[in-house]
Amino acid sequence: MIAATVYRGESVENTHAAHVAVVDETGRLVASFGNPHRVTLARSAAKPAQALAVLETGALERFGFDEADLALMCASHSSEERHIERTRAMLAKAGASEADLRCGGHPPISEAVYKDWIRRGFTPGPACSNCSGKHAGMVAGARSIGAALADYHLPEHPLQVRVKRTVARVLDLPDDGVQWAIDGCNLPTPAFPLDRLARLYAKLAAAQPDTSPLARIYRAMTAHPELVAGEGRFCTQLMQAFDGALVGKTGADASYAIGVRRPQGVLGIAAKVEDGNTAVLYAIVAELLAQLDIGSEEQRRRLDAFRHPPMRNTMGVETGRLDVSLRLERHQ
Amino acid sequence: MIAATVYRGESVENTHAAHVAVVDETGRLVASFGNPHRVTLARSAAKPAQALAVLETGALERFGFDEADLALMCASHSSEERHIERTRAMLAKAGASEADLRCGGHPPISEAVYKDWIRRGFTPGPACSNCSGKHAGMVAGARSIGAALADYHLPEHPLQVRVKRTVARVLDLPDDGVQWAIDGCNLPTPAFPLDRLARLYAKLAAAQPDTSPLARIYRAMTAHPELVAGEGRFCTQLMQAFDGALVGKTGADASYAIGVRRPQGVLGIAAKVEDGNTAVLYAIVAELLAQLDIGSEEQRRRLDAFRHPPMRNTMGVETGRLDVSLRLERHQ
Repeated sequence: MIAATVYRGESVENTHAAHVAVVDETGRLVASFGNPHRVTLARSAAKPAQALAVLETGALERFGFDEADLALMCASHSSEERHIERTRAMLAKAGASEADLRCGGHPPISEAVYKDWIRRGFTPGPACSNCSGKHAGMVAGARSIGAALADYHLPEHPLQVRVKRTVARVLDLPDDGVQWAIDGCNLPTPAFPLDRLARLYAKLAAAQPDTSPLARIYRAMTAHPELVAGEGRFCTQLMQAFDGALVGKTGADASYAIGVRRPQGVLGIAAKVEDGNTAVLYAIVAELLAQLDIGSEEQRRRLDAFRHPPMRNTMGVETGRLDVSLRLERHQ
Repeated sequence: MIAATVYRGESVENTHAAHVAVVDETGRLVASFGNPHRVTLARSAAKPAQALAVLETGALERFGFDEADLALMCASHSSEERHIERTRAMLAKAGASEADLRCGGHPPISEAVYKDWIRRGFTPGPACSNCSGKHAGMVAGARSIGAALADYHLPEHPLQVRVKRTVARVLDLPDDGVQWAIDGCNLPTPAFPLDRLARLYAKLAAAQPDTSPLARIYRAMTAHPELVAGEGRFCTQLMQAFDGALVGKTGADASYAIGVRRPQGVLGIAAKVEDGNTAVLYAIVAELLAQLDIGSEEQRRRLDAFRHPPMRNTMGVETGRLDVSLRLERHQ
């Protein structure tokens, strides 16, 4: 179902289909668009569930990881210095080094960082991967359960076997209810129905007491939004605007998940753009917040640059607009 | 209609809808997929029609533009030195300069050029726009009809009024059968049914005699494929592989058009990916050549990197595949 249309002048340039699932604290579907059960590769939006598996090994206490380290384990960061340095510090705490990582360097998400690297002739190593915090966590997790560090990224490694069980459990799915593929960063990555991604984030927002693993992840991400993404990024700005009232995380190829704490109860929201367009995803997510009346108008306005991305040409002339036409269907 | 699917492992990551129109020399639809009449912003795939309008002003003869200059007028080039230098030479021939151009600089299509610019701290001017050849042609066209150079890019400028009439005429549409918007490079850009784009390219391939305007454009583009795009680009490699037997041109937001000369008659092909994904577009175009049995297997194999783009992660591990499932429907 078409969720968004890009117009150039009055002509349709592109259209984009999308799917949305909104669930309550129990995982019940309360609103949707498209196919809320679309089996979706959540990619980095699944990082909190992967971090949960590492947390359950006791690695954080064992190696003295703090709340900010936990936030970085859930990050798709912009490879800023603060992200790379923290990754290296986490590895050092776990008695490991960058050479133990099984992810690869890549051009950073941040254009400013990219330009700086090119100017300096810098070749990014694994600690510069946007997933390096997750990988540092996995290394610590492997060490914590007494498994070999080598091949910690392979599906059959004891740590990944635990990750797979943990992910299925927290989604309330049987082990074989989750499909697994290989992520851009070389770790196993899960696919499962979109409403289960919403459920995961509802659980993050609902978790009690504050010392419970999911509540710790919620607090870490919302307290350190600048570590979860980076300067000017959607996740960072969203969590900064809502100041602890919600946790949000993007996944590559346009998936997104949010867990919201509201006086009237928790909500979990998950969205996927069928063609993988991330700019369209962010506009849709910003629109969903309005349709679900989450936060104040002023808070939502802080995402206006994503909700109504300026479409200007190389001379600064406005050429068109992105129109999000999706309307949530309510299920009561 | 879904034309292509990206798999990660065995899970569906993204799907992409597309439309295709294939016409014969008379413009009759002989094969299609999706909606062959989708009103489409052809963007740079319309450049041959815009070049035709300039050619009809007599500007090429008047200012001594050669065949390579005409090719650059139809280009979305990579901002390589040869492209920028030729643009400047065209402007000089027309008694104009870079300051007369009404397009803006932008990060180049070529990653190698981009890195070079960043290393050198180079700020691109209008001659570096990927459309600078088209703009240099427009400047020459404006001068050729005795119109002011200022505002040559505005819809009401006498040159653009001519361009609009010429585009409609060559598409066999009434003037009001074409919608106009503003392009990324600041010129008016037309939208019209996709099968008319196929018709335009069939006309390019069919044009006789060799001295006729459309035949000159066909020859210029096919003789100078490195000027029409650049190092490693799809248009360049396609035309090099087919060595004069077809002309092909991409448009931003994933439109493509091809005109083919075959012993059994001319074909015009136009494609548009509904969500604007260019990598998917090129895979589809390469697949269409196979389904239409155009050229030899060896020629088509030279486009394999586009037809089956390698999907590898940051460690070089294969993570999935792009599957083009579209099958042309034949109309006899």
